[in-house]
Amino acid sequence: MRILVLGGDGYCGWATALYLSKKGHAVSIADNYVRRQWDHELGAQTLTPIRPMAQRLAAWRDLTGEEISMHVGDITDHEFLSGVIQEERPEAVVHFAEQRSAPYSMIDRKHAVSTQVNNVVGTLNLLFALKEFAPDCHLVKLGTMGEYGTPNIDIEEGYINIEHNGRRDLLPFPKQPGSFYHLSKVHDSHNIAFACRIWGIRATDLHQGVVYGTLTEETALSEALINRFDYDEVFGTVLNRFCVQAAVKHPLTVYGKGGQTRGYIDIRDTVRCIELACLSPAGRGECRVFNQFTEQFTVLQLAHMVHDVARKVGLNVAIDHLPDPRVELEEHYYNAKHSKLADLGLQPHLLSDSLLDSLLNISVQYSDRIDAGLFMPQVNWRSHRNERKQAAPVAAAV
Amino acid sequence: MRILVLGGDGYCGWATALYLSKKGHAVSIADNYVRRQWDHELGAQTLTPIRPMAQRLAAWRDLTGEEISMHVGDITDHEFLSGVIQEERPEAVVHFAEQRSAPYSMIDRKHAVSTQVNNVVGTLNLLFALKEFAPDCHLVKLGTMGEYGTPNIDIEEGYINIEHNGRRDLLPFPKQPGSFYHLSKVHDSHNIAFACRIWGIRATDLHQGVVYGTLTEETALSEALINRFDYDEVFGTVLNRFCVQAAVKHPLTVYGKGGQTRGYIDIRDTVRCIELACLSPAGRGECRVFNQFTEQFTVLQLAHMVHDVARKVGLNVAIDHLPDPRVELEEHYYNAKHSKLADLGLQPHLLSDSLLDSLLNISVQYSDRIDAGLFMPQVNWRSHRNERKQAAPVAAAV
Repeated sequence: MRILVLGGDGYCGWATALYLSKKGHAVSIADNYVRRQWDHELGAQTLTPIRPMAQRLAAWRDLTGEEISMHVGDITDHEFLSGVIQEERPEAVVHFAEQRSAPYSMIDRKHAVSTQVNNVVGTLNLLFALKEFAPDCHLVKLGTMGEYGTPNIDIEEGYINIEHNGRRDLLPFPKQPGSFYHLSKVHDSHNIAFACRIWGIRATDLHQGVVYGTLTEETALSEALINRFDYDEVFGTVLNRFCVQAAVKHPLTVYGKGGQTRGYIDIRDTVRCIELACLSPAGRGECRVFNQFTEQFTVLQLAHMVHDVARKVGLNVAIDHLPDPRVELEEHYYNAKHSKLADLGLQPHLLSDSLLDSLLNISVQYSDRIDAGLFMPQVNWRSHRNERKQAAPVAAAV
Repeated sequence: MRILVLGGDGYCGWATALYLSKKGHAVSIADNYVRRQWDHELGAQTLTPIRPMAQRLAAWRDLTGEEISMHVGDITDHEFLSGVIQEERPEAVVHFAEQRSAPYSMIDRKHAVSTQVNNVVGTLNLLFALKEFAPDCHLVKLGTMGEYGTPNIDIEEGYINIEHNGRRDLLPFPKQPGSFYHLSKVHDSHNIAFACRIWGIRATDLHQGVVYGTLTEETALSEALINRFDYDEVFGTVLNRFCVQAAVKHPLTVYGKGGQTRGYIDIRDTVRCIELACLSPAGRGECRVFNQFTEQFTVLQLAHMVHDVARKVGLNVAIDHLPDPRVELEEHYYNAKHSKLADLGLQPHLLSDSLLDSLLNISVQYSDRIDAGLFMPQVNWRSHRNERKQAAPVAAAV
């Protein structure tokens, strides 16, 4: 299958591109490398030393004989994106090309606006390009479980049957997103559903949980293929950050009570979910929503798991409860359905001690790259002008 | 009360600014005059000869002694908007400053993107400016009934109590908007609800129906105060367009079967609703939604009403059913609640023969400005590159 991965230089995008290539698909990537630029802006860097894309692709070719074609550009540039679609004639487009950090979107007004404009315009451009140049192509879009917020009822996969005053309808599940970033994904979801309805676009809107892990079978083949591993307060996801904190015996930073429950997924399952969605495309005009996670945890549960595994290898770390910089419920009901990807054949990697061991090992292996100044939350939801202190140049911490 | 009207040069904004001024409020306006520019772009003009803003304001001052201050600028320019908020220190901001035409947003990709970016960024800028410079100010935002679409259940005012698998929650009413414009309002609504939740902004999100009429007590005082009256396929609302068509004995252009049911409101009620909302502000952190319309009609019902009133004054017009250029249900269930503004004291002007008479009279009075080339739909929802034929220069039709 010809598959175009937008945002293929990012954390999920890179792992996905390699996995799909390994599985025999003809993979191409488009990326503007802005994720690397955000690291410079924030004075942060990935724990793992990722290579420039040209080296990554050369290593993949050398190791596997597989060629991944690369298009450098920005999907908010419609001419660029249309050109790529026309050249690659993809059967599926996997769309990771968005600003994906909630704290980044909450830094200040400019970051809120740039996140929403970047994500909404990129997705609109893609919808128009598909309509015009690849009307039968299947859009596989990364949304987020964060679109739903934390309602006091079970979360369904995208749609809910509502009975009201004696009448019934299947309607979009109400969304209560918790940051300007999460809002941008809700905007996308509404725009995509509309494009499916009026133009017959095929779409699968993957509402993904929090991703953890870094190694996949493919990225583990060579250090030249190594994937991002973000642990800073802005782009780091919580479980990865806890493991890095444990590696340098820094207290695990739980926001508030830690009763925030979310859906989580191993990055090895992310890449499988993407392929499963591609292999069973949505019908013409269909806008499917799959909740893409495998297990629910509270933040505090994760902290305790990391704490216990770390202790076994001689790393004793405290668990610190910080004032929650976000505006969110610290304890709440949460029960989200996630059977549709399982129905397509997903066999999940559940969170285990051995996975945590592996994450800890990587964190220890690259501990000379850890900057503990990046752990503490500086972006506050209640503020609107977060003067993020630029961390000391990372070179100084190495 | 100090009230700032954003978009005060537009159809609803101008009538609202005068009404509020007449009622003794200290009114200021901000506008970038882009609505006049869109007329030039489309080769269209309002039926009524509106004056430049400076003349409008001078006439109002001469007639009433009331001063309305004017700020010329674009609210997507944050520096401009922040300056206005700081200078005017409004107790309420009435936000009409958006691109408000569904067909305009459906012309092509550029118009879709510019509509969403303009509306979303303007509203984000406003939320940040209120948070920083006027945290107690009440945001009165114009949304649209079109945010809801046409669900098969009763439409509530913004929120719906959902019971699901034995649990209950009051959640945002699911939205199924029908154009890139309507989508932009849904994006706004989500952004506003979030800002209320995290920053304690006070907001009233008025989901307004289709507005008809042009005269209010204030705009009728002098021809220098005359309000817009749009009848073209892009910006003209349906009842106004039917009256103009009848005045020149053009068939009334019903899209499809005409069973599309919507909520409607007289512009004289629009301005009263705005004041009612201002006088009973939302609480800190509250995001209220009022459905702002007074009656439901099908498009075909309106066509028959105009047809019958026109015949009485010797204007015999046919009713033509055109292929529907939009993607929408031509017959459907529709029952939308609208009691909250009535609870605040709204006494509606219901649609009557005398109002239709008055609209017909105005249409006949200005019939030398009617360009029948603007009636027929050129923007099609199923297309994505609507090459709108520029109408003949209007001067030729005068």
